[in-house]
Amino acid sequence: MSSKTDKIDEFAFIEALAKHVAEAPEALGLNDDGAALWFGDGRKLVVVADMLQAGVHTLSNASPDQVICKALRTNLSDIAAMGAAPAFFLCTLALPKKPEAAQIQQIVSALDKEQKHFGVSLIGGDTIGGKGPFTVSITVLGWAAGPLLRRSGAKIGDDVWVSGHIGDGWLGLQVAQQKITSLSSAHEKSVLRRYEYPEPRLKLGVALAGIAHSAIDVSDGLLGDAVHIAKASGCALTIRPALVPLSAATQNWLRDENDPETSRVSLLTGGDDYELLFTAPTEKADKITGLSAALGINLCRIGKVCAGEGVLLENEAGQRHTAPKTGFTHF
Amino acid sequence: MSSKTDKIDEFAFIEALAKHVAEAPEALGLNDDGAALWFGDGRKLVVVADMLQAGVHTLSNASPDQVICKALRTNLSDIAAMGAAPAFFLCTLALPKKPEAAQIQQIVSALDKEQKHFGVSLIGGDTIGGKGPFTVSITVLGWAAGPLLRRSGAKIGDDVWVSGHIGDGWLGLQVAQQKITSLSSAHEKSVLRRYEYPEPRLKLGVALAGIAHSAIDVSDGLLGDAVHIAKASGCALTIRPALVPLSAATQNWLRDENDPETSRVSLLTGGDDYELLFTAPTEKADKITGLSAALGINLCRIGKVCAGEGVLLENEAGQRHTAPKTGFTHF
Repeated sequence: MSSKTDKIDEFAFIEALAKHVAEAPEALGLNDDGAALWFGDGRKLVVVADMLQAGVHTLSNASPDQVICKALRTNLSDIAAMGAAPAFFLCTLALPKKPEAAQIQQIVSALDKEQKHFGVSLIGGDTIGGKGPFTVSITVLGWAAGPLLRRSGAKIGDDVWVSGHIGDGWLGLQVAQQKITSLSSAHEKSVLRRYEYPEPRLKLGVALAGIAHSAIDVSDGLLGDAVHIAKASGCALTIRPALVPLSAATQNWLRDENDPETSRVSLLTGGDDYELLFTAPTEKADKITGLSAALGINLCRIGKVCAGEGVLLENEAGQRHTAPKTGFTHF
Repeated sequence: MSSKTDKIDEFAFIEALAKHVAEAPEALGLNDDGAALWFGDGRKLVVVADMLQAGVHTLSNASPDQVICKALRTNLSDIAAMGAAPAFFLCTLALPKKPEAAQIQQIVSALDKEQKHFGVSLIGGDTIGGKGPFTVSITVLGWAAGPLLRRSGAKIGDDVWVSGHIGDGWLGLQVAQQKITSLSSAHEKSVLRRYEYPEPRLKLGVALAGIAHSAIDVSDGLLGDAVHIAKASGCALTIRPALVPLSAATQNWLRDENDPETSRVSLLTGGDDYELLFTAPTEKADKITGLSAALGINLCRIGKVCAGEGVLLENEAGQRHTAPKTGFTHF
């Protein structure tokens, strides 16, 4: 029993809610990227909700339309991780002061552009005059025609895969904060874009339903999110850091670092990737490679699912050690 | 065309979103308390989302569990106004600092108690470590088996009805802020309760589907919300202030006021009532009176729908004048 002044972390809070409040089967034990309502015709309505705040999930000086775009995209990433296609969204926002017409115009234009790009429609929400920084909460509703992708389906022997490139989001944040200034301007631009406008892997998510055994979107850091799959599936994930796909920008940066191993860990734990991490049986490898070509998305095998718990890192000689305890947590 | 530095108000913002972004039929033109998805079996899934912030919608020192309860109840009030029964909710929240275990325990207990009381289940959400005041956004999903209640259905000749008592929420806020100190402690307690824990009219909302022509929940003030029905329905609402039902607490307070007419306007424009304002044809009056008895909810006829626009106030001699331009707006 914790004492009255004990502090509590984000995951302990979610666990308490899952145990005592979110008991409906639709909540999926608060163990996945979203909830799901089953319909008689076999379809599932997937519902996800995430809140973002300027200065927490974006730079402090990000404009409201930038924060809203990121919020929509990170929610769509959750929809993708469940194997669903997005349909509708609601958006509640707290504006710190009476907005100017030009600012509203930017928000309206950004929402219109984003919803057309991602095939999703704004259907409701709320705006308040708030007292803190600009804050936005988005709820996305999407349809899964096939089986749901969940965190809990990983099986021993599965390959571990990841989409795209890992670490660009983290590197983008360092560039934005001027903590890293050694990148070329082209690479700066590309990693900043990855940090500010993540690309949800929507087509991939839908395509993986029925192929992958488990999936999660990489928002808190690759290793931290791998732990979520391991925990939900009751097994361990062994990952070879050397196999984790890196963009030209991160490869260049890593090459010039004094301590590339520590720097590589930053990339694997930094978060803001919004790629899909998934596991699949080895006999599906050809199908997944085919998907990669068909969708034009880099898909890499980076490890295996094995007996045990947590995440192990494996070097090229096959030696394993426990992954550093990492992954973003809000409190 | 507005210039770059023009300020814009909340309703102009929503109008711009409705015109340029929320074009899907499910959005209902952002003109109602929620959105609706139609299903083949005739059911409608109603989705509502509202954000609340400590110090804006509650006192600054309200505890997170109090703010969450109010947020859930105000969202449920929107569900009621659409004629739906709530089923599920998602909750995203920004906690200003690492919470203590006891605080989390309070939130968990409050959510559990509320969801049992209202027959609704938490299925998802998000928690962030925010930088401003405690902020919560709730999305509720509910089912409408009958026709949807909407703001746009009022017909000339309809009676205008309101549930419960109007003004208690506003009076509760004045008491909480110690702006009004003349109430008995029993009355103070009852109006504070109305401000802090509004009672969504869920059973009434479902029962009115198929009876009422239009409905809205009274959140921004009776007169302001009456304007929303008038505007959406393309007609005018004539309201007799003397017929608006007041609790014993507000009646007592009004009796002792120097300028009871001005004070009465405060009650009718103060907001935070979370009663249902609805219109219905006169031939349904008996049915509505029957509902009042069956549900144990005060239901009063306070006016008529007529040709024209906006809201007119009518005195006992039948003289009409335009209602003061009021109703809470966030910016």
